[in-house]
Amino acid sequence: MKVTVHRRAHFNAAHRLYRPDWTFEKNEDIFGKCNNPNFHGHNYELIASVTGEIDPETGYVIDVKILKDLIKSEVEDAFDHKNLNVEVPEFKDLNPTAENIAVIIYNKLKAKLESKFQLEITLYETPRNFVTYSGK
Amino acid sequence: MKVTVHRRAHFNAAHRLYRPDWTFEKNEDIFGKCNNPNFHGHNYELIASVTGEIDPETGYVIDVKILKDLIKSEVEDAFDHKNLNVEVPEFKDLNPTAENIAVIIYNKLKAKLESKFQLEITLYETPRNFVTYSGK
Amino acid sequence: MKVTVHRRAHFNAAHRLYRPDWTFEKNEDIFGKCNNPNFHGHNYELIASVTGEIDPETGYVIDVKILKDLIKSEVEDAFDHKNLNVEVPEFKDLNPTAENIAVIIYNKLKAKLESKFQLEITLYETPRNFVTYSGK
Amino acid sequence: MKVTVHRRAHFNAAHRLYRPDWTFEKNEDIFGKCNNPNFHGHNYELIASVTGEIDPETGYVIDVKILKDLIKSEVEDAFDHKNLNVEVPEFKDLNPTAENIAVIIYNKLKAKLESKFQLEITLYETPRNFVTYSGK
Amino acid sequence: MKVTVHRRAHFNAAHRLYRPDWTFEKNEDIFGKCNNPNFHGHNYELIASVTGEIDPETGYVIDVKILKDLIKSEVEDAFDHKNLNVEVPEFKDLNPTAENIAVIIYNKLKAKLESKFQLEITLYETPRNFVTYSGK
Amino acid sequence: MKVTVHRRAHFNAAHRLYRPDWTFEKNEDIFGKCNNPNFHGHNYELIASVTGEIDPETGYVIDVKILKDLIKSEVEDAFDHKNLNVEVPEFKDLNPTAENIAVIIYNKLKAKLESKFQLEITLYETPRNFVTYSGK
Repeated sequence: MKVTVHRRAHFNAAHRLYRPDWTFEKNEDIFGKCNNPNFHGHNYELIASVTGEIDPETGYVIDVKILKDLIKSEVEDAFDHKNLNVEVPEFKDLNPTAENIAVIIYNKLKAKLESKFQLEITLYETPRNFVTYSGK
Repeated sequence: MKVTVHRRAHFNAAHRLYRPDWTFEKNEDIFGKCNNPNFHGHNYELIASVTGEIDPETGYVIDVKILKDLIKSEVEDAFDHKNLNVEVPEFKDLNPTAENIAVIIYNKLKAKLESKFQLEITLYETPRNFVTYSGK
Repeated sequence: MKVTVHRRAHFNAAHRLYRPDWTFEKNEDIFGKCNNPNFHGHNYELIASVTGEIDPETGYVIDVKILKDLIKSEVEDAFDHKNLNVEVPEFKDLNPTAENIAVIIYNKLKAKLESKFQLEITLYETPRNFVTYSGK
Repeated sequence: MKVTVHRRAHFNAAHRLYRPDWTFEKNEDIFGKCNNPNFHGHNYELIASVTGEIDPETGYVIDVKILKDLIKSEVEDAFDHKNLNVEVPEFKDLNPTAENIAVIIYNKLKAKLESKFQLEITLYETPRNFVTYSGK
Repeated sequence: MKVTVHRRAHFNAAHRLYRPDWTFEKNEDIFGKCNNPNFHGHNYELIASVTGEIDPETGYVIDVKILKDLIKSEVEDAFDHKNLNVEVPEFKDLNPTAENIAVIIYNKLKAKLESKFQLEITLYETPRNFVTYSGK
Repeated sequence: MKVTVHRRAHFNAAHRLYRPDWTFEKNEDIFGKCNNPNFHGHNYELIASVTGEIDPETGYVIDVKILKDLIKSEVEDAFDHKNLNVEVPEFKDLNPTAENIAVIIYNKLKAKLESKFQLEITLYETPRNFVTYSGK
């Protein structure tokens, strides 16, 4: 019996959307006010969804505490109260759009989860804008 | 890398569930208080979910502004503060159940989106009742 | 020890904002799209807040079941799935703005509550627009 | 046209996570504070999602009232304000983890739904921890 | 300039509403299914609201971290994953209604806060039932 | 009859909590990770609550459209997608704590509202941390 276990977490961060190889005007045209060179920020809400078989001994797919600790060490400690462009190595050469942040979080968590699990990441940039990525 | 971008929107509308070719009694039997001939209404919450490849240049699947504007012109301008049965042509001969409204919204947005995108519509009639349609 | 007990409820209704003694143009000017003669509607969310002393015997200010039943008989049965302008006597000559609906609900519930209780009504017309009235 | 109809419901219950065939120490090690022999509890939020074809006559996949009544008789009446370990027969020999509760709810509702429908259960143990099961 | 700083927290607990000096029938009559001798439970959501002057040096009324730590030591460590009737001394002889739990939380936090602050406690037993207490 | 009309809005911004006249170490000690010199950010949620008499002619205390437009011009246009420390004049010499942001928003809106209205500002920095200010 395959069940998906979801864990919600959050982090607050500053970011700016732009490409350093583009002119300011082109960045302004494509990214609008998200291109503010002084940065803006968000309360990111994250749902990490792990799919696997129920362990008949414990009744768990995965102990939520393990998932919670993994999110803390891989995501919250790395991103919370940070400037994503300036301080998070993964975004040194990668535009921190919600799409790209979700892919990075997926890759970081997937590498630490047992390979038997499937993973899906849902990332809310605001309550109205959010993205989903499942490694496909 | 396929990512789904979700955009939330809303509109307020009046509607009535009934079939003009049925007796009032049969409509009352099937649709209950939703058959009120004087109409009732809802705050509809909409999530439009667009799936596609991340554009490596921008880091976007789709610019959310494009999606937001499309929802405004196709859905909000057409449905908001309207009487769905009386004023929205698509429901002249179609019962405005949540299921049918979701299908209509899907068809309207799909026709305007680039064909490379997949679309899913989630429509909340109330916080407790909602539907999902993805063109299948 | 004075404690406030809050109970949340909801109802769905159609309405139109206008004054029959004004021209259509003046109504359009003041009430905009809320003046749609074919009506629009909302999922109204209601919080009824009752303040009083804790009964030392039960530990209750008021049994929430009593409050829930009162909201059902006075508000839900009267307003839910109704057209406020056409079917609810209190709005025959009173514009069903959120402010006026809150006052009517306050008056209906206050009349049925023991006089020792204070009452406050919070009414959400949408998640972004809401009003509060406490009989002052 | 296949649409999914979702209905949200809730119930409050006490539970304890443990295996009677394990020592208290092993239970404490695996289930932590969820192993409290005096029980703890949750407000469980449930979403039952039914997928099927839209009936062209009514515009419904399933009348939400049928789904609501089914959830009431099969889930709310059986679990609400109960001690899951002590009073719910399905958990006499089954650890009431969120995963296992979701599977039991799936089995109970699936048995009563017309076989043409697919079902998915989402169960929130807390706003931060939830699970999904669809019979696979 | 007086500002109120609100901090939200939560805990999960089991409880039973009854008076040991009443017959089971009288308890059943007054407390209904909340009188289940095997207990039921809730996800309690707490908002602690502290009012005071803004410190012109820091711009804080109170460092939210101090408030968060106080809620952890006084409320979460004492109530979370506990059976309120059996394991929390304050409810040995006090019925754990939402009203009484709010008063106890108020008293515990007030005793540890600097006396210059006013305190208000909002406690959600469920999303639909909640209480407020401010020491009056 | 005095009613309070509430309007919800939001803006996203970057900020840093610190005093330029303190050493980095003292700022770190008082403001912790909020002192990050590269900034972090939030989705701020705002509720502006205006209290006044119901106008018997319209049934409005204040046309919500007026309030919405005022919040847009005074708050959203000034703060949204901005770095509060660097780009918003009011915080050139004022630490942008939630408390201080609420006071600034209060002062800006109060100056533009008719003097007969009372105003209260609720500002969410995160869903768990929020403040209230009403000019007292």
